[in-house]
Amino acid sequence: MWQLLQFPLCPFSRKVRVLLAEKGVGYEPVREHPWERRDEFLDMNPTGQVPVMVDTARKIVLLDSMAICEYLEETVDKAAMLNGTAADRAEIRRLVTWFDVHFYRDITALLLHERMEKRIVHRAAPDAKLLREAMKAAVAHLDYIDYLLDHRTWLAGSTMSLADLAAASQISIADYLGGIDWKSHEQAKRWYVGMKSRPSFRPLLAERMPGINPPTDYETLDI
Amino acid sequence: MWQLLQFPLCPFSRKVRVLLAEKGVGYEPVREHPWERRDEFLDMNPTGQVPVMVDTARKIVLLDSMAICEYLEETVDKAAMLNGTAADRAEIRRLVTWFDVHFYRDITALLLHERMEKRIVHRAAPDAKLLREAMKAAVAHLDYIDYLLDHRTWLAGSTMSLADLAAASQISIADYLGGIDWKSHEQAKRWYVGMKSRPSFRPLLAERMPGINPPTDYETLDI
Ligand SMILES: N[C@@H](CCC(=O)N[C@@H](CS)C(=O)NCC(=O)O)C(=O)O
Ligand SMILES: N[C@@H](CCC(=O)N[C@@H](CS)C(=O)NCC(=O)O)C(=O)O
Repeated sequence: MWQLLQFPLCPFSRKVRVLLAEKGVGYEPVREHPWERRDEFLDMNPTGQVPVMVDTARKIVLLDSMAICEYLEETVDKAAMLNGTAADRAEIRRLVTWFDVHFYRDITALLLHERMEKRIVHRAAPDAKLLREAMKAAVAHLDYIDYLLDHRTWLAGSTMSLADLAAASQISIADYLGGIDWKSHEQAKRWYVGMKSRPSFRPLLAERMPGINPPTDYETLDI
Repeated sequence: MWQLLQFPLCPFSRKVRVLLAEKGVGYEPVREHPWERRDEFLDMNPTGQVPVMVDTARKIVLLDSMAICEYLEETVDKAAMLNGTAADRAEIRRLVTWFDVHFYRDITALLLHERMEKRIVHRAAPDAKLLREAMKAAVAHLDYIDYLLDHRTWLAGSTMSLADLAAASQISIADYLGGIDWKSHEQAKRWYVGMKSRPSFRPLLAERMPGINPPTDYETLDI
């Protein structure tokens, strides 16, 4: 049985969990707060980051969300999320990196620091200027999603892929933390509501980080 | 014919170029300086980053060095660099990310900013404190390489892999910029000299960035 070390507001863990659910792979979620820097956890992963996926019986430790997703793609046929030609797969992978690196750096990481870490670790108030910067960056990223959806049904092409999972995971955490305003982004919103309504996604939206509450629309499926 | 947009001191471009050479794939290197933020380049890649690999005739544009390497692994059989079981491949991929993200952030990016960008773009002197921080971080990373080589012939296991290419690429740029001191790292040094001596690597070591000179040992193969 897989164990997945994670916490509810980690977008990379969410991406892996949605993929596990789409593929029907069972796992036990185990809470790990990287900011506590547990010695046993640091011994397991020198980056000190979640997610980490472990199968103790088979002595397998998988580190880094993209390496974990590639592993699941290689070992589980169901719900393939890297489809098409080699060039199609390259397009999916570069979009996963786009959301994991750039959306995360510009938006999710800022919001997590201001609204979660500052509260839990430093007991400090968020910086309003940084929150505004994250929301401004989110508008640019939603514009880019609208642009992709002008030409495509899903973000990377004609079928759902890991790019959709990566994007929806980042967006849902940013949304939980009050960073997303859907105004003038009807196309992106329709795509995101489609992602939210999936049985793989809905249970994750029901999870809460103690002391931090999402906005009222966070779980709803209205367009 | 592939074109690769890059500049000589970009470690991600170097990783792709070593892989292309190992696989015997021909390409034309095209100079692109991302800090010039050329409009046509930004239209091609929203991250504004090199490397970008293009085949104009076949209308293929590949973005992000990892997506490019996965593409080459999928399309060219020669010199496979993601070998073994799914778990072995996950270990290779997480190490590639370790060097591309953590080594780059802690060492290469700092040195590139202080010793290259400041000189070329800002015409300013490097900050001695930041250079010392990068060199200190390099010692910790070389320790980790020594630790990996205590248990393995190559960084990710018993055969050469993309992890070795990624690590050697970051190290060689850090070395060019004076950030590497091999003292007390005999094991890592022996591995790196092996990488340097490869026909895929040597031509890259002969390239220079105008106005920035590497230390005398940069190209030599002495142990
Ligand atoms: N490249 C990693 C990034 C994971 C990551 O940044 N996780 C965050 C939580 S969302 C973390 O553990 N941060 C703690 C730290 O960086 O010290 C992946 O895709 O797995
Ligand atoms: N994840 C990218 C990173 C590439 C990257 O950071 N390239 C640097 C040059 S070494 C760059 O173009 N930087 C310009 C910028 O970020 O604006 C990849 O692996 O291709």
